This record gives sequence, structure tokens and C-alpha cells, in this order.
Amino acid sequence: MSKPFLKQLQKILPTESILTDASECLTYGYDNSRRHAQPLAVVFPTTEEHVQQIITICNQHNISLYARGRGTGTTGATVPVNGGIVISFEHMNKIIHMDEKNRSIDVQPGVTNLEVQQCAAKHGLFWAPDPTSAAFCSVGGNLAYNSAGPRAVKYGTCRENTLGLRAVTGNGDIIQCGTHTTKGVVGYDLTRLLIGSEGNLALITQATLKLLPLPTAKHTLKASYQSMDAAARAVSNIMAQAVTPCALEFMDKNALDMVRSYSSSELPTNAGAMLMIEVDGHADTIQRESEIIKLASQVEGHIQTDIAQTKEEAHALWQTRKALSPCLRKIAPKKINEDVVVPVSNIPALINALDRLSQTHDIKIVNFGHAGNGNIHVNLLVNPDDKNEMKAAENCLNDVFDLALELNGSLSGEHGVGLEKRNFITKELGKTEIKLMHQIKQVFDKNNILNPGKTLPEM
Amino acid sequence: MSKPFLKQLQKILPTESILTDASECLTYGYDNSRRHAQPLAVVFPTTEEHVQQIITICNQHNISLYARGRGTGTTGATVPVNGGIVISFEHMNKIIHMDEKNRSIDVQPGVTNLEVQQCAAKHGLFWAPDPTSAAFCSVGGNLAYNSAGPRAVKYGTCRENTLGLRAVTGNGDIIQCGTHTTKGVVGYDLTRLLIGSEGNLALITQATLKLLPLPTAKHTLKASYQSMDAAARAVSNIMAQAVTPCALEFMDKNALDMVRSYSSSELPTNAGAMLMIEVDGHADTIQRESEIIKLASQVEGHIQTDIAQTKEEAHALWQTRKALSPCLRKIAPKKINEDVVVPVSNIPALINALDRLSQTHDIKIVNFGHAGNGNIHVNLLVNPDDKNEMKAAENCLNDVFDLALELNGSLSGEHGVGLEKRNFITKELGKTEIKLMHQIKQVFDKNNILNPGKTLPEM
Repeated sequence: MSKPFLKQLQKILPTESILTDASECLTYGYDNSRRHAQPLAVVFPTTEEHVQQIITICNQHNISLYARGRGTGTTGATVPVNGGIVISFEHMNKIIHMDEKNRSIDVQPGVTNLEVQQCAAKHGLFWAPDPTSAAFCSVGGNLAYNSAGPRAVKYGTCRENTLGLRAVTGNGDIIQCGTHTTKGVVGYDLTRLLIGSEGNLALITQATLKLLPLPTAKHTLKASYQSMDAAARAVSNIMAQAVTPCALEFMDKNALDMVRSYSSSELPTNAGAMLMIEVDGHADTIQRESEIIKLASQVEGHIQTDIAQTKEEAHALWQTRKALSPCLRKIAPKKINEDVVVPVSNIPALINALDRLSQTHDIKIVNFGHAGNGNIHVNLLVNPDDKNEMKAAENCLNDVFDLALELNGSLSGEHGVGLEKRNFITKELGKTEIKLMHQIKQVFDKNNILNPGKTLPEM
Repeated sequence: MSKPFLKQLQKILPTESILTDASECLTYGYDNSRRHAQPLAVVFPTTEEHVQQIITICNQHNISLYARGRGTGTTGATVPVNGGIVISFEHMNKIIHMDEKNRSIDVQPGVTNLEVQQCAAKHGLFWAPDPTSAAFCSVGGNLAYNSAGPRAVKYGTCRENTLGLRAVTGNGDIIQCGTHTTKGVVGYDLTRLLIGSEGNLALITQATLKLLPLPTAKHTLKASYQSMDAAARAVSNIMAQAVTPCALEFMDKNALDMVRSYSSSELPTNAGAMLMIEVDGHADTIQRESEIIKLASQVEGHIQTDIAQTKEEAHALWQTRKALSPCLRKIAPKKINEDVVVPVSNIPALINALDRLSQTHDIKIVNFGHAGNGNIHVNLLVNPDDKNEMKAAENCLNDVFDLALELNGSLSGEHGVGLEKRNFITKELGKTEIKLMHQIKQVFDKNNILNPGKTLPEM
């Protein structure tokens, strides 16, 4: 790192807000994709002015800048591949204004999802996005990836639950977009353009999140089916009536077999697929609503549906699903976890074809995920130290992506592109669309300072 | 219109798809803002290729192109102010694919909102956006303005209910964006960027709309209050619990007084504000849900809440609201109807300040609208033939917009900008944001062919 560059950084940030020691910087080069690149330095802004000044200096010195929340992303989108500096939003973690009367909250990007939920819950509210990493991941990261989670099936993703943003563009301009209201149509929708752009256009410095009233009651249902086809029919049936569950998760046969072999979870012997369903609402109506969902779950090939009404019963029902992750970690600690998405009715075709791909490439594949959105977590159980297996996995992944697109789907439902899927993007997006996106990038970030080498493929 | 230009149009379109006669073109120069400009010609594409070819020819001849659905917009966004040609999507009105299993429908832009609802209803589904003009307005128009309607309070606007688009940019490139799934995070969100851009960036040729299950039951509630403050407290209270109504409309004191004077609708004499509430859901739970809403409606200053359970009872409750529009038409046939939006808790402050503005500018103002979204239809009852009154109205409007922004709101919740609000946009958007939007416009439409002179102010 050049001395003049460092000197300028030191002018704007206190000493403790700059890391330059290689060993201290090391961990900031990782994310949950396990990819790594060593950053030149790590900076910790605490104000919007800091962010603007850092971007300005990076532009002056042509140094790449990689925004980082808490590194829970799975695609390498925060890894500083270009030898640039990492801008960590860890210290920009204030809740600026809780506006319970208008169901909204203004936060800095470094606040964790959990902190938002805790603050909102005090006022009987919640923010819909609930990625698995909610306890650790930052709101800025959630917005950068448009992360969701199980609740998206009823409440939508970040795009449907964010009212407005403040951000600094790659050119160093502070912008404000969106509203503090639940409707607004003045000017182009820059808010959603930034959400999901993976720190590629502008760095978010403040977000106005749309909150929803916290349901006062929740029921958990567990439904088992003879086959994935039957379970998928049940998903369609459940989604075709007026009571929408707040989670509609599934596990395929391979996932169930794994849980059977490695845990003591109770499962019908003939179960070839399982749905975990959560229904939320008002205490006075929840009983009837979960009965309606139970009825909708009973399609041909259905084995049984249990409704849990107490926390203990719900805990017992979740055991099978909860046993899965430790099982997967035991068997394949470095599995590849993709998150393709297909229209709900194509889930059986996807799962059947994945079984065939598993055989063709001789790779064990376990599927589970957000059935209500058709968002399937496809887990390739591989050993990354086995080069042959990794080569086969690469070919297999290629086929998995082709398959998702053939089935009218998309490469990613919530994990995003980052580095992991960057080379596959041309399968989904045409040349014209990619060119347009590059030109938009150019408008926001003319020197390509922000997160270069990610999200969009080279032109 | 130059002969070579017309000749080229005639090459690609059949004779009946081009109007050049001034009297035939006349009506296509209007929209519901009552503004008018005479188009050079009107063209009626039936295919995406037509749209692309028309845009290409317009680029070659530097002729402006104004997209038009059914002309129900209220801001002049389709008026061909620059002496260009109007591209009417009336004949591009096919439902391409109804996918009931995946709750989506692919349509051409000229399909009316009603046609979508009718097709979806056959499969027990509906599309959430429901502008008042639903029977006539086109989906293309809905998307161009991000139109909503009462149901937005529960189900969101076009942005939350559109999965993907096909479009032709102002540069003549066909693009496809979004997905056929309810989640998707590959590339920038061009879908929402186009929605609400008022035919300014690209012309939509196909839309994949997200459908929702049609509720099987609906209850209507009518609640009256001593004051607007009390009604607004009730709105906050209703929105703070877990049962969200599918409509939460209000009328202020002036609106009620008008109905009292000009119709026989029954109203408590001491009512200073009224809420019309609709609750939808499942037949088995609706009774309890409307009781929950009724309970939430009973704040201090509440007079009474009636629940209608039959169609006839609902019809009776709606009478007051339905009497309003004919009253307004009788008193001020050419009223100015604005649609500012403020955070819900600021509704009383807005209404009180509007009363003061009414006195200051000596203009009668009547307010009603979508209280659940804070989206207030502010009606200035003016006579457009009275120049002094129109001058006062202009000053008053200026103050209304300042007021909405002071109250943390926006100039428009659903009508959009078009011509009507173009000169006021700099109140809400900063120079940096407007410049960025112009640059984005430049990326999509380098020759500024599409809808010039609208939506964004001059730089």
C-alpha cells in the first residue's frame, strides 16, 4: 500500500479504525464461501462522511474497495480479490430511529438482523428477512444480497421490505432514495436497484426498513409424504388457498435418509419427503388457520400431518430438520451449497433430475429448502481435497444450473452471485442485459472502484 | 411528419395500425389529466418486433415516442408534448400464459387490469394492484406508474407483485429481466427500475405478474370518529396488530360535510372523519378477524363501527363513500386531485395543515384516500376557467407539496409525475439523484426518444 494513500486514510480515520497488519487483516479476507484474498488494509468507518471520504481517496489512488458486513455471505462477494481494501461496517451499527407508529426503523448498515428484530419486537413488530445467519449477519449484507429466508414465502424479501436508503456511490456522491412511506412513485426506483447489487454500485450508509406487526401466535406442522412428487403437489395446494404459511420448508428423500442414519429423529419408514410448515397470525384464529393448512397438505401420497401447539411440541417436530445440518457437517464438512430456484410446480422435475445428475457425476446430492418459493438448497457432498471429485462437482454444478434454467428458474434465490456464480451468469442473463448492467455500473462507479471482479461477468 | 419516416412505418405495420389523420389522432393526445398535445401519428404494434422496429425508426429520424395504455393516467405522462408519435398498446392485449400452479400470469401490456383479474379469478387467484380505473386501465400503464389502489395496504404495489418483464429499451434493444419465480438475485434489479419509470427508459412488451390466492370471504366495516385525529389514531392502532385489512380508506370532515349536503347517506351528526375498512380471508376465520379489527378501531374519539356481513349490508356501508365522487363532480367538475403520501402518524398533522392552507388560499379542499398507506387524495375544488382561482391553486399546490415533504412524505403515492408534478420534483429529489437518473436514462435511451419532457426535470 502506497504511503500517500495510507496517510490520507489516517487523516480521516482514527488509528484504531485502520488495520494494516497482514495478520490482523487476514480474517477480513474471508467470507462463508471459504474463499480468501488478502486485503491491503481494513477500514472501519463510523459515519457517512467517512464512507464518502474513503471512496474519494480510493478513486484518487485507484484502489479497489470491498464492502463487508459480517462475512456470512456464501458466494465470496466480500472477498478482496483485486488486492484492494476492505471497508467493514462493523462499527457503523447504530439504530438511528425506531418509528413504531409508522412501522419503520432507520438503521446503519452494520446493525445485525437480530438487533433489528429485538428492537422491533419491543414494539410488537418485526422485519421480514430472516436468513439462517440472522443472529450474526448485518442488515447491510442482507440488503447487498437481497437475502431472505423461510419467511419470504409470506412476507417477501428485502426488496419488498425496505422503504428507502442513503448510500454513497462509487463516484463518491451521497444519495438518498425511496421514502419513509409504504408508497412512493417519484423518480426511478434506485432503492431496489441498490438492493441485491452486492456493493457494486454504491455503499449503503442508512436504511429505512419496513416493519410488520409481530404475529401473536404460531403453529408448527410437520407433514410427511411417500414421494417428493406428492410433497410438491401439497406445496402447490397449500399455496393455492388464502391462508399463506410463514414457512414452507422441505427435505427430500436423501436428506431424510441421512437423518435416519445419523440421528434418532422419528420418521415414518415410508416417508420419501417431508414438509415443515409454520403458520402465524392472531391467537384467536391460528387454530382454524393451521387446520386449513393441514387440510391443504393432505394430497394423494400424503402419509401424515402433525400440528404442534406448544413450544415443546414444535421443538419435537423441528428435530428432523435440525438434525440435518449436523449430519451434513459430519459427512461432508465442506459441501457445496447452491440455492437454485424454480417455479413451485417444477420442484419434482428438479429433484428427479438432480437424482439423475447425482448418478451421472457420482456425487451425493441432498436437497432441502424453501419449497414455498421453489428455492432449493442443493447440497453437493464433496471432499474439496479430492481433485477428481471437485472436477466432477464442477461439471455437475454446470448441469444443475442448466437444469434450473430449463425449468424456467434462476441460478440463485437468495445467496447471490459474488465470485461463486459469476462464471455461470451468462447462462441466465443475455449479452444485452449484461451490457446494460455494466453501463449502469459505470454511471454509479466510473472508475470501477467498488467490488470489482464480482457479480457481473467481464464484458 | 416526413415522408421517408412514414414510409418506413408503413413497411413494418399494416395500414390499419397507423393513424395519421389529425382528427383520428386527436383523442390519443389526451389522458385523464385533461392535458393535450396533438401527435404526429399513432401506431398500434401487435408484436415485440413491431415495438423494436418502431423505436429503431424513431431513433433514425429523431422522432419522440410516447407510450400509451388506455389514457387513464392523471399526470399527462402519455401526452405527446414534443410533437412525436404515440405508440398505443391497445392491440398488444393478449394473455400469453396463465400459470395457475405457480400463481403467475404472462401478459402483453395492453391487457386491462380487469381482464387479468377475470382470468386469474377463474383459477381462484388475483393480481393485487387495483386502481380505481381497473375496468379500463392497462397493465402496461399500471406498471409504468407503479399504480396501486386500496389493496396496496395489505398486498403492496406493482413493484411487489411483478416477477419479470420483457421490454425494448429506447436504444432499440430487447431485454428480459426478473424471473418466473418469487425469489431471484442474479444481476441488478432492472424489473423494479422499469416499473414506475413512466415509459421513459424502455417500453414493456410482456410482464410476468405475481398472483395471490383470492380470499374466500370479505367483510366491510365502517367506523366513524369525532375528529380526524381520532380516526388517524385508529389507523395506527389497526396497523399495529397482526390482522392487516385489505383496504383502510378514510374521508375527512369536508368530504363528510359534502356528502351530507348533497346526498341522503346516513352519517352520525358528530362524525368528523370516517374509515372504510375491508377485511379479507378465509370464510372460517373472517368473523373473528373483523371483530379484531373492530376492536382495534375503537380508540378515544371513536363513535361507532358497523360490520357488514352480507353484500347488501356492505353496499349500504359503502354508500357514503360512493356518494362522494358524484358530489365532487357536481360541485367542482374540474377539481385538481393530488395524491401526496405521508407516514401514517402524520395524517392528522397533514389534514390540519391542509385546512389552514385552504383558508390561506381561499380554496375548498376535500381529502379522502388510502389511510393505511398514508396516501391522501387532496382535492382542490377549483374552476379552471377562473384565472385568479387557478393562480391561487398553483400557490396552494406548491404549499401542499412542501407540507407533504416537511411531514417526511412524498409528492406522489401512486399517480406518478408525468407533466403535472415535473416542476415540483426538485423539492423531493436532490440534484445528485436527478443527475444519476438522467444518466440512467441516457444508458437506456441515448437519443432521448422515449417520453421526453416528462418525469425528470431538465438538468
